[in-house]
This record gives sequence, C-alpha cells and structure tokens, in this order.
Amino acid sequence: MRNITVAIDVMGGDHGPHVTVPAAIRCLARHPDLNVILVGPQDIIAAELKARRANSGPRLIVRHASQVVAMDEAPALALRGKKDSSMRVAIDLVKSGEADACVSAGNTGALMATARFVLKTLPGIDRPAIAAVMPTIKGHALVLDMGANVDCTAEQLLQFGIMGAMLVSAVEHIPNPSVGLLNIGEEAIKGNEMVKQAAELLRASHLNFYGNVEGNDIFLGTTDVVVCDGFVGNVTLKASEGLAKMIATTLRAEFKRNWLTRIAGLIALPVLNAFKRRLDPRRYNGATLLGLKGVVVKSHGSADRFAFEHAIETASDEVRNNVLKRITDQIQLLQRVAA
Amino acid sequence: MRNITVAIDVMGGDHGPHVTVPAAIRCLARHPDLNVILVGPQDIIAAELKARRANSGPRLIVRHASQVVAMDEAPALALRGKKDSSMRVAIDLVKSGEADACVSAGNTGALMATARFVLKTLPGIDRPAIAAVMPTIKGHALVLDMGANVDCTAEQLLQFGIMGAMLVSAVEHIPNPSVGLLNIGEEAIKGNEMVKQAAELLRASHLNFYGNVEGNDIFLGTTDVVVCDGFVGNVTLKASEGLAKMIATTLRAEFKRNWLTRIAGLIALPVLNAFKRRLDPRRYNGATLLGLKGVVVKSHGSADRFAFEHAIETASDEVRNNVLKRITDQIQLLQRVAA
Repeated sequence: MRNITVAIDVMGGDHGPHVTVPAAIRCLARHPDLNVILVGPQDIIAAELKARRANSGPRLIVRHASQVVAMDEAPALALRGKKDSSMRVAIDLVKSGEADACVSAGNTGALMATARFVLKTLPGIDRPAIAAVMPTIKGHALVLDMGANVDCTAEQLLQFGIMGAMLVSAVEHIPNPSVGLLNIGEEAIKGNEMVKQAAELLRASHLNFYGNVEGNDIFLGTTDVVVCDGFVGNVTLKASEGLAKMIATTLRAEFKRNWLTRIAGLIALPVLNAFKRRLDPRRYNGATLLGLKGVVVKSHGSADRFAFEHAIETASDEVRNNVLKRITDQIQLLQRVAA
Repeated sequence: MRNITVAIDVMGGDHGPHVTVPAAIRCLARHPDLNVILVGPQDIIAAELKARRANSGPRLIVRHASQVVAMDEAPALALRGKKDSSMRVAIDLVKSGEADACVSAGNTGALMATARFVLKTLPGIDRPAIAAVMPTIKGHALVLDMGANVDCTAEQLLQFGIMGAMLVSAVEHIPNPSVGLLNIGEEAIKGNEMVKQAAELLRASHLNFYGNVEGNDIFLGTTDVVVCDGFVGNVTLKASEGLAKMIATTLRAEFKRNWLTRIAGLIALPVLNAFKRRLDPRRYNGATLLGLKGVVVKSHGSADRFAFEHAIETASDEVRNNVLKRITDQIQLLQRVAA
C-alpha cells in the first residue's frame, strides 16, 4: 500500500487551526496510509499541536507559511500578493510532488484562482469545475459545476460529465455511472441552446448518458452524476441549504410550541436525532476542484472538526483511487475519437 | 363591491373536473363577490355538477368547449389545432371581457403560448414571466421567472422586478416591497454579464432594490421578491420540491424503523401534522402568468381540490387588487423616465 500525503491549509475557514489541526490528527489515527503536511504560521501550529498533545514527526510535518488569505479577499489580490500564504504553499506542495493532494476551507475564489495558476488544468480540460456530493433518497449524487464557471459552453458541460463520471466510478467503484444533464424539462426540445448542444455531445459520447433531468431528480437520485453550469449549480446548492434550514427551523418551532409538544419532542428525540444524522451536511463536506493537475478539495468555510475530517478523507480517497489518471485517460480517448 | 368573474379550464390538470368543479363550488360559497364560468364539455360538467348537487345559475355559468389540451401536447399544436379547447375558450373569455381572470391546471407551455397569443403582453413588457409564491422562514416570497423564459435579457429581468413588486404590493398590501436579484455571490462583481447589467438597471430604477441575493435567501425571506431567469428559477423550484420530498421520506422512514420509533411517531403525530400543514405546498398553489393583458393563473397539474381552490383565490385576489393597472402604471412611469 502506497502512502498518501495531504497538504492542509491550516489557516483556511472560519475556525482555522482550532478545526483543521485536530481534524488532521484524528485522520492520521484512523488511516495508517495517510501523512499530512500542516501549512501555516509555525508558532500557531506548534501551539495548537501542544494543546492537542500531539507532536510533529514523519507522518505529521509542519511547513511554515507566513501569510493568510482572508475569507473575503479578492482572488486576484490573493494570487498576486500572497505568495507565502498557507493556501498557496499547500498548493505549491502538490505542484512539487511533496503532497498528493491539498485541502483548504479558505475563500473559494482564491483557492480556484491559485490552484489554476499553480497546477494548470489537465490536457483537454478547458476549465476546472467544483464537484459536490448531495444526499438523495437512494444514497447520494455528484453534482458539478457548483459555481466555478458562470457561463459554460456545451463542450465544457461534456467535460464536466466525463470528469464527474470518472470521479464517481473511481471513488464509489461504480463501473459505468449514469450522467444526467440538468434542464427544465425532460423533453429534448426544452432548455436553452447551450444545454441542447451539450445534450447532443453527451449523447454522442461513450458516457452512460441518461438524458435531461430536472431539479427534483438531483434529490430523487435519478442519476449518479448531474451536470450543470456553475450559476445554476450554485443557486441550487444554496437554495437547498436555505430550504433545509427553513424546514429544520419550522420543525423545531412546532415541537417548542407548548409543554405538550415539548414532551412529544423529548419522546421523539432519538428519532429526530437519527433523522438529523442521516441528512447531516457535514457528512458531505468537501467539494473537489475537478480538472486540475492535482487533487484539490475545498471544505465549507464553516466546517467543524467532523466536517473537515470528511474533506481530508475525500481528498485521500481520490488519490487512493487514481481519479486524475482516469480522467486523463478518458479525455485522451475522447480526443482520439474526435481526431 | 364589484363582482369578480373567473373562467375555469375544467379539463386541465391530472384530475380534471373531479377537482376543478368542486373547488369552484366551494370558492363560490366562501366568496360572495365571486362568479365562475366553468369551461369544458357541457355533458361532463353537467354530470359533475349533478354529482355535487350543484346547479348552474347567475354565479355559476357553464360554457361549452368541445376540445381538451393534453398535458403533454406540444404548445404550438395546441395553439393552432385546438381553438375550441377548454383552455383556449377560458382565455378567450378574458380577452372578450366576459371574465376578469382565468385559471388552468393544464399544460404550462400550451397555457403560456395560448395566453400570449390571445391576450398579448402589456405595453412595455417584452415577455410574460411565471411568478410563484414560496414559503420562507419569515412568511413567503414571490419568485419569478419560474420557467417561461430560458434566456433573458437584463431589461427583461428589470421588467420581472417591476411586475413582481407591483403584484406583491397590490395583493399583500406591502407599500414598497424589497426586490432581490438571484446571483451566486452577494458581491457586485460576481455573476454573469447579463445579471450584472440587470443589477445596474434595478439599482437605477425606483424599485426598493435590495441587491444580489443567493439561493438560500429565497427561503430565509431576505426579500419580498426574487428575480431570476426562467432556467434558474425552474431548476430551483423543482430542486426544492425534490429536497422537500426527500426530507419527508427520510423523516417517515426514521419514525417507521421499529415499534419504539412508531410509538414516538404516534405521540409526535399532532406536532408532525402541524409542521406538515405549515409547509403544505397546496397552500402556495397558483402561479401567475405575469405581464399579459389579463390575469391568468396556472395551477399545479397534480393539484387536489384544496390546492385548486387556492389557485382560484389567487386569481380573484389579483383582480380585486388591480394588479394589471398597477403594473401598467409603473411601466409607463419607467418609460417616461427613460424618454
């Protein structure tokens, strides 16, 4: 078994080292094939390790980085002005081969801009996409793009389909995952021009293309992969977060209405907790920046230790299952067919 | 108090007259200022009225129409080939002034195409939009467009904003409703070109423009009106339906896990039912085809009697509150400012 090294941007996210360092320590304890490089200001990392009674060593390396990218910093400024940021150095470690993957809970725009600049895209991929796992009635589905590309071409949607299918087949061990194209009607005549062209390209490809799917199909688990442009994907993701929050708030309010409903709530508590666990968004934390020459995983900024651990595991799973090689092979196959 | 006459496409929807006729009868009983014209095959309507022990009269008129538009019929075919359909005749009654509004649970595409052809758009409105009410943590919000226009210009989004604001101010009696533009980031720099231009137009308008909102803001109730193109709106609407269904299915499954959880479910049942009622989508049934020279309300195809009643009430509320005149006045104001 080969070892996997994940570089961690210790300073990213709303909670920074208080979340990222303990998450890394727990992942190391659980996965014997994992090494981590903690990237950030040396003194801060040392203090956090001390507080957790952990030491650096061959499996836990500390790499100093003097700067921090703020959560609201403009991507272009972060890219030009912060060459020694924890985010940048973590990505540099992937470029140099010292790390197999990097994980950051930092500013999405800055992470995407820096990763594209440092790592470049895979041959045949125009632009990277953000791929996220969403829960469904049947299990889960991979949806991309979640916001990296506001305007997409049909060719890019095809590339998203290929990348998404390869990621799912590699990590979930599904031989020929189904791919759906997000549209506003199942009939081929609906949708805008770009989506219609994308459907033709997907249909002509060697992918297991299901056809058009609608918004509800994401959560019904109609296909393993759902492809859309980044504008639609991001709005859908955020709307789902908002709706889930509204439903949870309403449910809580109903159980707190009076002493009778409170007693009912206490009796139902184990069931409500089991329900909450099943749909816990922390279990789906870690979106992949797909299409780069390197594995880069973006954690939600508000991730806690449990959620950030999941992002580290997502990154190491992708390395373990050779996702990048599978995508490269498929894109080459596509290009050979086209040539 | 003036009387309001609503023409009802009796044959539209998955259930047709079994739902539309009893819903109309109940609305008549509840609203003394309401008259209805039931449009469809005379014998079918007569049989349904008889089964409900109801009679036609000055407040309940039956208008024969010999054809029916199928739920999956191509809009262009319905428009050209079915000039005596229940849908078409109901819209014709609005055109001739015999009815103030029409309600149909039929095929959305056919309804929009026929309504545009027969009624035409209001002066200054390029294309009608579908406006739907969504529940929020604070109450509810109006979202448009929900699927009539897959590709929109910035000017159209401005028109949607004006129409939505006028609808909300008229029906909900909110003097200056806030309008949000659906985007993928709150910062003005994000989003695609069309959305950026629309933000500038909305900011320069006399509307109470809040700025960009994200998907989660719909359900947080950040603004009274949310404007987006029909592709994004439709995907968001359908995804929300799918997610709500998934959450309900998961909650039910957890309560059915074993006899202990079943007992907890029985004890919690009144609370769970109250929760279900609060988020009942039937209470939001009835999307308005906004921007036409006439009030046209589209009910969900699967609507039951309770939901269809709500669509009839939505239509009569809009007539009662002079929504069309308010929109026309505001658009004229905009054109005077621009001239």
